[in-house]
Parts: sequence; structure tokens; C-alpha cells
Amino acid sequence: MTTVGILGGGQLARMLALSGAPLGLRFLVMDTAADACASQFAPMIVGDYRDEQALGEFASKVDVATFDFENVPAESARWLADRVPVFPNPHALAVAQDRLAEKTLFRELGIPVPDFAAVDSREDLEAAVASIGAPCILKTRRLGYDGKGQFRLRTAGDVDAAWRALGAQASTVGLILEGFVAFERELSVVGVRTRDGEFRSWPVTENWHVDGVLSASLAPAAVDNALAEQACDHARRLAHALDYVGVFALELFCRVGVLLANELAPRVHNSGHWTIEGSETSQFQNHLRAVLGLPLGDTRMLGHACMLNWIGHMPEASVVHAEPGGHWHDYGKQPRDGRKVGHATLRADSTGALAEALARVGAALGRDLQVAPVIERLGG
Amino acid sequence: MTTVGILGGGQLARMLALSGAPLGLRFLVMDTAADACASQFAPMIVGDYRDEQALGEFASKVDVATFDFENVPAESARWLADRVPVFPNPHALAVAQDRLAEKTLFRELGIPVPDFAAVDSREDLEAAVASIGAPCILKTRRLGYDGKGQFRLRTAGDVDAAWRALGAQASTVGLILEGFVAFERELSVVGVRTRDGEFRSWPVTENWHVDGVLSASLAPAAVDNALAEQACDHARRLAHALDYVGVFALELFCRVGVLLANELAPRVHNSGHWTIEGSETSQFQNHLRAVLGLPLGDTRMLGHACMLNWIGHMPEASVVHAEPGGHWHDYGKQPRDGRKVGHATLRADSTGALAEALARVGAALGRDLQVAPVIERLGG
Repeated sequence: MTTVGILGGGQLARMLALSGAPLGLRFLVMDTAADACASQFAPMIVGDYRDEQALGEFASKVDVATFDFENVPAESARWLADRVPVFPNPHALAVAQDRLAEKTLFRELGIPVPDFAAVDSREDLEAAVASIGAPCILKTRRLGYDGKGQFRLRTAGDVDAAWRALGAQASTVGLILEGFVAFERELSVVGVRTRDGEFRSWPVTENWHVDGVLSASLAPAAVDNALAEQACDHARRLAHALDYVGVFALELFCRVGVLLANELAPRVHNSGHWTIEGSETSQFQNHLRAVLGLPLGDTRMLGHACMLNWIGHMPEASVVHAEPGGHWHDYGKQPRDGRKVGHATLRADSTGALAEALARVGAALGRDLQVAPVIERLGG
Repeated sequence: MTTVGILGGGQLARMLALSGAPLGLRFLVMDTAADACASQFAPMIVGDYRDEQALGEFASKVDVATFDFENVPAESARWLADRVPVFPNPHALAVAQDRLAEKTLFRELGIPVPDFAAVDSREDLEAAVASIGAPCILKTRRLGYDGKGQFRLRTAGDVDAAWRALGAQASTVGLILEGFVAFERELSVVGVRTRDGEFRSWPVTENWHVDGVLSASLAPAAVDNALAEQACDHARRLAHALDYVGVFALELFCRVGVLLANELAPRVHNSGHWTIEGSETSQFQNHLRAVLGLPLGDTRMLGHACMLNWIGHMPEASVVHAEPGGHWHDYGKQPRDGRKVGHATLRADSTGALAEALARVGAALGRDLQVAPVIERLGG
């Protein structure tokens, strides 16, 4: 009997446990919140990730450890890795946690990135804005997610406001200035790499964000083969460079046919939730297979899929239940503004049928704005 | 928050909980065994189904109750139904628990059945054998499953032996004599009916048994449309007659193109396990949707599927993991002779590809005999 430990007990841990159960696995999650939603289907230790007693109890009960939460302190991951196998490795986690280290690695690997510069002081910020030009975005180097910890500068005159907003964090989590990319599309590659270096990826996905939070994902993305291959190749090189084991997402901008790497998410990813019903093997099960040293499952798609995120509260389920290719995912969370509480995946055999299903669901739920860009992309 | 109670905590309860989690449901299982495998993913009450205190605690914590185990005492089901909604209804459960009531209903509905007669005494048995003819099978009316509680009479001279084997049970669970059907195929229809009478079924499945236990299932069965429609029509009429709510299986024999009803299983069924990966909506999720009054999901197939049962112990998983359409299901049970410990489903886009996958898996696992009849049926 193998027990997989997961640091973080949110919806990703929950879906990992649900998809890993058929492999005969047991799970133990650790989270700071007693009501973390994975605990509805897996035993949980409640504790701070820096609490060595809690972490020690966790380590003593698991055969291997992985993450639902990318901001587990890297030192906690290293402490744990001295006691049990931890995948992805703490170095990969640390790089992904630091926008500066991450973008530096992208550049070293020849993966194009937007202009960027480290910002340790107000003088650095002024110099960086002068060099990179406006518009640009000041971001925290660490602990940012879903658009949090970011300030957009429209002109060089916004330096004051940007420094007031984030300057205090220069000495804590660090800051980075990034050139603003007027991208046409946001894409992601969800990839998986095994302990012995085999790499697979699911078809490239197009993503739409609202207020910095993922709103909809469409797979396969309507991009040409050369672009899709380049995206997958970037992901492959990144995984090999980090000796990465497990599933990760590489987020990319596409501007005039050129891909620019935005971010590495060192875990199963929201833009891969469609793989549960839309591909032969889900990102969740393949993450576990990789972590456990099992053969990977096939990542091919079954038709076309669109994932719609539910933020804040769950909409009326019956609309999606009544769709022939509709699949509902309620994470069992209490509603709260801005919180990811669930998603739906619509699957269809053709882009036309998918567009029609999206139009029906959007209209019935009063979410026309959420589905509109996807329908437009599908040529609907 | 809705909590679904499941009487019985085996692999069916486990798969119900795993497939119901995305609906935002919580589960509570009740089982007599503390190590029942569903308890790895759902809270459990350990107790006898006749223990009103345990059953009362169960009732107080659930919003609706259903079954993983068809032999829950019908009186316990009725006791429970006075307190919470119970689906399928206790009457349907009681009919399905009694081979005589079940076969009488089949006959009343015009669904052909093998010859049968109630046997309450040794004289009844002699008369029944004389009337039905040998070969025939003496079975307990209740509490039989997977070939248990059965005695096959090859000739009328086996009456003594049959009575010695099962006669003592004539006054407890009752006996029935059934004509032996020299069938060419065993088929099943897995159907689902909602609270308001909507009926759907998955494609007809062909099944192979070894020593009375299901060994392999193939879907869709290679039968002509007329036969498939007739099988589904039988299932539909049966469900309506019983005001059945939820998933059930109707097992059928096929002899010279005629369908004979064998048995009604009032629950999700082993011959429907392939629906997890092989159809748009699994039998497990549709059972929950029906029980909860939600719209049913689409029952169409995604290609061709074969389920292989693992009895006694789990074979080597990596062989199935390495198959592009291979899906592994380990129920998390201890190995034990004759015990259903897991299954695998192979899915493919064509019958030829499915036959090839079965041949590879059968050879690699030394289970050529298990896959041979399926490959033969696929024309491989």
C-alpha cells in the first residue's frame, strides 16, 4: 500500500486523490486550513508548512510527497526531501516560485521572454522603466498568483504609484519589472515528465483570464502545428533543465506568431482540468504516475473540450448536467468572492458542436461574456 | 451540502463516492466490515444492517440512501425508507432479492425466462425436475450471488445430491428450480431510471463468466440492432414496473437469437464498470444523478471497451498502464481467493485495435484464457 502525501489540500489535491484512487493509492494531505476541500475525500494533517513537528508527522506517514500548492516554502520542501522522495524536486519548486530565477532560466534555455529586470530599489525601478519602456508591470518576485502582487504602469509617470503599492516588498519577496506584452493569445502547455526523463504533453490550450484569474480554457488551441510543436519543445527543454518530475504548466503569450514564456506552474494546473474528460489520461493521474515511477498514460484528446471556471459561487448545475458532453466539478467549498469553487468541462466531437454547447450554457447561466471569446475562436 | 448514504462499503460504494465527488456530494457508507474498501475515501459507520441504532445514526446523517450491496435485508431498507428517501425503493430491492418473485415479474411483463418452479420440499423438487427436465439448476431464492447457493442437476438422478446440498435452505431462504439454458451468449443491459420516469441505457454488453464470477465484459456487444433494442426494451419495462430509481443491470441469456431474462441486479453492476472510461457518463455518476433528481448524463459510448476482472489478487499493473487505452482500477483490498480486488478497462477506437490491446495484455499477464473469448468475438 502506497501513501502519497500532498502539501496543500485544495481542489488540486482533491482531484489528485480522486484520480489516484483507482491506482490503489492512499493519500494524506496537509493544509493550514481545517476545512480544506481535499479533506472531504482524504485524511488530513492541519498545520503550518514551517512547523517541523507537523511536517515530521506528515513525512512519517507517506511514501512520497508532492504539491497542490506552489508556494509551500522551499526550505520546507527541502526539509521534507531529506526524509521522503519529493516530486517535483525542491530546486524546481524554488525556481518556479521566483519570477526572476524563472525568467532567467527561460532566457538561458533560449526560450523567448518579455523584457524584465530585477528591482531592488526605487532607483532600480526608474532605471528599469527607462530601459524596458512603458507600459510595463511591476510584480513581486515570489508569492504572487492569480494577478495578485502586480501593479501595471501605463507610463513612466506611474513609477511613484507603483513604488507606493509594492515598494515595501522589495526587501521581502523581491520585485521584478516586466515589459507589457500586447499579446493576441494566452496559451499553455501542460506537460509531464517521468523519473527517467520521458516527457509527454497534452495538446496546447488557449486560455482567457478575467481580472487575472483563469476564466476559460479551450483545447486543442486553434494554432498551427509549428507553433504547437514549439510550445511543447519549450516545455520539454524546461522540464529536462529542472530534472522536473510530475505535471507542470508552461504559460505562454503569443504575439504576432511568436511565443513568449510567461510563467511555470510547478503542479497540475487549472488550464489542464479539461483533461479529466477530454483526454485518455488526465493530468492528475499522469502526475501521480510520474511521481510514483509508473508508465505514463496516453495524453491524446477525445474530441474538443472547453473548461469554464466558476469563481466565487457555483452556478446552477442542471444546465451543465443536461448537456450531452457536460461535466460538472464542484470542489465542495464555501462560496467566497474571488475563490475558485468549481468548474465545468464541455466536450464535443467537433468545434461546431462545442460552440453550440457553449452558447446554450452561456445563455442559460447568464454567462454570455464568459463563453463569448471561446465561441468566437471556434468560429461560431 | 448533500450527503448520500450507501449501505455496503465495497468497491461499488467506493466508485460511487469517487464519481460523485465532482457533483459536490459528501458520502457516508455503512458496512459490517471495518476494513471495507470504500472507507478509504468516505467516512463509514461499522454496524449490522439489522442494528437499528447503527441504522438510525446512519439515517440521521444522510439526505438520501442507496445500496452497494443487494442483500441488505429488505426490512432494513423499509425501516430506513420511513426516515429518509431510499432509492431504489425497498419493494424493487425485495423483488430483486428473490429469484422467484423476480422471475414471476419477468413472466408477467412478457419478458421470456427459462422454465422455473418454486421448490419448498423434496417432493416439489422431484415434480419440478420431471416437469422442467434435466439439465437444470437448483438455486436458493435469496442471498445467492456469483454462482454461490447453486447446484446443477445433469440428470433426474441428481435429485438426491441436489437436495443434500441445498434442501436445508428450503425453509430459510427458499429454493427455485430453473431449466438449464444452453446459451450462446450472456448479455447485460445496464439501465438507469430517474425519479420522474426517464429511462436511459448504455449499449448492450456481452459478458463471460468463470466459475460463476464475471471474468470479462465487452461493449458494445456484437449483436444486431433488433436484439439490442429488445434487450433495452425489456430493461425499460422492468424499471417502470418496479418504479425503479437509479442504475440496475438486467442479465440475459441469448439462445438461437432469443433473449431470456436471467437476473435483475438492483445496483450499479460489474458489467457496467467499463462506462467509467468508455462512455460519456459512467453508471456511477448516473446512479447518483437519478437518486438525487438531477438530469441524467449521456450514456453514449466512446469507442469500444473491454473490462477484465481481477479476482483473488491484482496482476502486474504496469502492463495495463503502458497500454494507450488502458485504465487500472485497484479497489484497495487485501488479496483473497475468489475476491473481486480490481479490474482494468481497455478502450480503443476500433474493434481491431481493442483485440490487439487485449492480446498484448493477455500475453504479458499470462491471462490468455481470460482474453481469448473476447478476442474471438472481436473477430481477432
